[in-house]
Amino acid sequence: MNDDQLRQLAQRLRIDAVRASSAAGSGHPTSSMSAAELMAVLFGRHLRYDFDAPDNPANDHLIFSKGHASPLLYALYRAAGAISDEELLSFRKLHSRLEGHPTPVLPWVDVATGSLGQGLPVGVGVALAGERLDRLPYRVWVLCGDSETAEGSMWEAFQHAAHEGLDNLVAIIDVNRLGQRGPTMDGWDLDAYARRAEAFGWHAITVDGHDVAAIDRAYTEAAATTGRPTAVIARTIKGKGVRSLEDAEGWHGKPVKDEAAALAELGADRIGEVRVHVAAPEPDGKPHVFATGGGELPTYERGDKVATRRAYGDALAALGSIRGDVAALDGEVGNSTFAELFAAAHPERYFEMYIAEQQMVAAAVGMQVRGWVPFASTFAAFMSRAYDFVRMAVVSRASIRLSGSHAGVAIGEDGPSQMGLEDLAMFRALHGSTVLYPSDPNQTAQLVAAMADRSGVSYLRTTRNALPALYGPGERFEIGGSRVLRSSADDQVTIAAAGITLHEALGAADRLAAGGIPARVIDCYSVKPIDARTLADAATATGRVITVEDHWPEGGLGDAVLDALASSGRRPAFTKLAVRILPGSGTPAELLAEAGIDAEAIAGAARLLLQEG
Amino acid sequence: MNDDQLRQLAQRLRIDAVRASSAAGSGHPTSSMSAAELMAVLFGRHLRYDFDAPDNPANDHLIFSKGHASPLLYALYRAAGAISDEELLSFRKLHSRLEGHPTPVLPWVDVATGSLGQGLPVGVGVALAGERLDRLPYRVWVLCGDSETAEGSMWEAFQHAAHEGLDNLVAIIDVNRLGQRGPTMDGWDLDAYARRAEAFGWHAITVDGHDVAAIDRAYTEAAATTGRPTAVIARTIKGKGVRSLEDAEGWHGKPVKDEAAALAELGADRIGEVRVHVAAPEPDGKPHVFATGGGELPTYERGDKVATRRAYGDALAALGSIRGDVAALDGEVGNSTFAELFAAAHPERYFEMYIAEQQMVAAAVGMQVRGWVPFASTFAAFMSRAYDFVRMAVVSRASIRLSGSHAGVAIGEDGPSQMGLEDLAMFRALHGSTVLYPSDPNQTAQLVAAMADRSGVSYLRTTRNALPALYGPGERFEIGGSRVLRSSADDQVTIAAAGITLHEALGAADRLAAGGIPARVIDCYSVKPIDARTLADAATATGRVITVEDHWPEGGLGDAVLDALASSGRRPAFTKLAVRILPGSGTPAELLAEAGIDAEAIAGAARLLLQEG
Repeated sequence: MNDDQLRQLAQRLRIDAVRASSAAGSGHPTSSMSAAELMAVLFGRHLRYDFDAPDNPANDHLIFSKGHASPLLYALYRAAGAISDEELLSFRKLHSRLEGHPTPVLPWVDVATGSLGQGLPVGVGVALAGERLDRLPYRVWVLCGDSETAEGSMWEAFQHAAHEGLDNLVAIIDVNRLGQRGPTMDGWDLDAYARRAEAFGWHAITVDGHDVAAIDRAYTEAAATTGRPTAVIARTIKGKGVRSLEDAEGWHGKPVKDEAAALAELGADRIGEVRVHVAAPEPDGKPHVFATGGGELPTYERGDKVATRRAYGDALAALGSIRGDVAALDGEVGNSTFAELFAAAHPERYFEMYIAEQQMVAAAVGMQVRGWVPFASTFAAFMSRAYDFVRMAVVSRASIRLSGSHAGVAIGEDGPSQMGLEDLAMFRALHGSTVLYPSDPNQTAQLVAAMADRSGVSYLRTTRNALPALYGPGERFEIGGSRVLRSSADDQVTIAAAGITLHEALGAADRLAAGGIPARVIDCYSVKPIDARTLADAATATGRVITVEDHWPEGGLGDAVLDALASSGRRPAFTKLAVRILPGSGTPAELLAEAGIDAEAIAGAARLLLQEG
Repeated sequence: MNDDQLRQLAQRLRIDAVRASSAAGSGHPTSSMSAAELMAVLFGRHLRYDFDAPDNPANDHLIFSKGHASPLLYALYRAAGAISDEELLSFRKLHSRLEGHPTPVLPWVDVATGSLGQGLPVGVGVALAGERLDRLPYRVWVLCGDSETAEGSMWEAFQHAAHEGLDNLVAIIDVNRLGQRGPTMDGWDLDAYARRAEAFGWHAITVDGHDVAAIDRAYTEAAATTGRPTAVIARTIKGKGVRSLEDAEGWHGKPVKDEAAALAELGADRIGEVRVHVAAPEPDGKPHVFATGGGELPTYERGDKVATRRAYGDALAALGSIRGDVAALDGEVGNSTFAELFAAAHPERYFEMYIAEQQMVAAAVGMQVRGWVPFASTFAAFMSRAYDFVRMAVVSRASIRLSGSHAGVAIGEDGPSQMGLEDLAMFRALHGSTVLYPSDPNQTAQLVAAMADRSGVSYLRTTRNALPALYGPGERFEIGGSRVLRSSADDQVTIAAAGITLHEALGAADRLAAGGIPARVIDCYSVKPIDARTLADAATATGRVITVEDHWPEGGLGDAVLDALASSGRRPAFTKLAVRILPGSGTPAELLAEAGIDAEAIAGAARLLLQEG
């Protein structure tokens, strides 16, 4: 396309952004209009993408980090012939693929955006996959808003992209000066943006974002830049093209007042249809395949003292030898989570994400866009740092595997800042999530392998402490299952536990047995989905259920069991043991006792429940 | 203190850091040793702090953002005479005030740290309070690690501090080159740190972190810098003072191997006790008091269509007129959360935090350190961005009030990225938290006022949609209460709901009544603490309970009700209605119907429960 055609295309994109949002009665036309030339030039001259084959590994990737500019994205799809005008006008309607913010229900959308500050970190993940896993020359283009540079996650992305030398990544920053409620911190101070990008090690180019020739030169320069990523920082006007909207406050997220007048001003009659042919990528792009040595998952002898976090590392390293598609990421605690074992075995597929949990999860999301199977780990407590990214991974229909070590008061001396006590609640409360909490190294290893084949967000909670293996090397564990460890026909109470509290539950059962009270003990290693049937049977058989967890009382194992029992129509007498005090430092045994979740406390709760009838 | 004495003090701090961590058998001596001179000079010459009066409003504030250097902090307290040697050696023991990472169980600790990247953003909050609320000349000194600059939240803090011109803030960055598992991204490239700080608008000073004279000059320069914050970027050696530990990997978070040898090398015999007299602040520091005009909370007529988010803004603005200690913060969506009403009424106490939710929550935590009563708001979905900060606010014993608007599928067209569907779970699963979900503007206003007096983390969930007021202006609502809206002696089923689903529940009750089925409807506006008694009575009376919430099924209202019923020993037949599909865009009514949480679905669930017996 020549420059005039690009300008026509840009104007057509504005027209269609206005039409779509007017048809919807909501949406963000003004945020779309500022970036029309930026995207017209990209589609007309630089993007390499086969719309008929969105899974072509050689395709470039375009991520709208400013997801609210969805009318622009959908207008681009229409101009590229990927969607019809009828579909464009279905924007924001029930069951339309054109949701308010982009999601991968559209085959050309890699990830959902709309929570600002996420598209660039995810783009870093795709670019990492391109350079280090796929080893293909595709580019990753990310359209960013200026407002979203207030999010720290953007600077995690700036740091990582530079540190990894991702010259296949281009951030296009649409500096239209206005956020939702008013001016941004830095207005049109393009140099402020450029200084920051450069200070973080990027190549920065400032440009008039409505000058198609200048934009073209900037993209060409970005593509030619080696060894570091490029930020194209564009001065733009929000609402560009309709004078009453241009650089005006109060129009964010609103359709135009007078559609006909706006379309007339944009020259809709004159411009007509504008089609853009997006160049397809080179046809011979084949992703790299990692050679694998095969092998078996680790096994452990019953009674061996092995922390489940250690078993996670062992299993992940073994899985990396069995499967070439597995990658691992860690937040600078690989010697605690034992992700370092994978790093040692498979350095090419290991990604050190430093203390940047948001970027870590975003990178995992980016890698799975390209079909890789990422596992990301840090302390369970610090998974909370990335919760918005995990939440959005669900909307992205992403399959990622996360492992949080150092769960609960059982970590001991480090104190509450390092104790994951809300992680089960956090991960349970996500659509389609899987939450696993093994108590044993053999179990852990098998669950790690199962996670690799699991879709959606999977979370594995591991324990710091080395505890005796409860199961033999031959036992099989599946997601959704459970294990009844103690059982008799006379059981008077059921104790449902997982992870470290399962060990305490067994101790409690011993104490109770010594007092003539047989207790059933269930290992609920699969917290979600939970084995409702086994729990219901136990509730029926014993009439009394105790849950015990090293977690706050809300949203964790206890609530999961209550829900399963209620759904099954079982109504046993019930006691939930959980951490109800704010812990400090101490030994693991002291803190388990103080929180009332050790063997002694469990046995006491069982006796109390029996006394109550 | 002269330079020699400062050097002696630094060495003594190392000695005590080694002793404390050796006594504990764990802890971070090497991370403490790198910053010994940095802190010796601060205590000896620059900090203005009255250890006998930690609540003195004129005190400087010192925050250890690298909280794992707690042995250094506690050694400083000992040197300042605030704690005994015996207490120092209680480090990390059960019930010691000297926890593994600092918490405010010590009166000189403002906030808990230990989740990296939080101390500086909280420091920004304290500094904001100093400049704009207290209007006192105290300084905020934040000791940061180099590793934690990987956290995006640090850069949110850099942006905000510069934007607000916080020249009362000094970040001291201890660049010891080594993180937990190995080298940082930038090693000893002090200029890389300086370039970034300057690009974000800070004054940057690089310094040899073991040269007391140079450190002194840097702090003097920092104190003299006006109009912008200062970063003192110090090249240090991890483990400094014990040759085998110096700049060595593998020693993070471990006590020294041979305590006696380490102490000998540090000159423990030669040095003996070193006391430091920390200068007290000017005695006449009185915090600013904002004049208030008084007034009343807003009221609304029954039937008026008012969104609870609007009532939040109305009430907050009124509360600001009634109380001078209330401040408000918002994440660049004040025109959606209606925090803009407070901004208009009380601009001096309003803080625009742009799209930086972590910094927003951290700033609220910082303000409450100084006794202010902050309310912070954004979309409910984006509270997930700050979950680690909220989690740590609990460990900080902080009292903050958060409001999340745009909850649930009921927001409609914007789609799932903007729908808060996990916020109830997230906030319930925090120790001592309060979770409120009003359905009515009068109720909202009273709960906002009650939050101001509430300790701990309080969360208010508001709804986007304007719905008719259910209560009259005279009704009173308390935290922990509920309201029975429909009730008769013949009720066959109880419907427990809150917020938008309460309106749907009333519609369901109407439908059921038309079919001859009387239903009890309970407004569970206080999700935590929940009114267990009213729920238990209703369960007893009706034998059947349905909960309905615009939230994922896990961790929200349904789980709260199940838990309350189980605790009360009530075992009704139970159905939990919640969002079990991944929603897209659509109208609010369409999406409520599709999720099965509208009046029709509730009525259907009630009929089903009745059929089941």
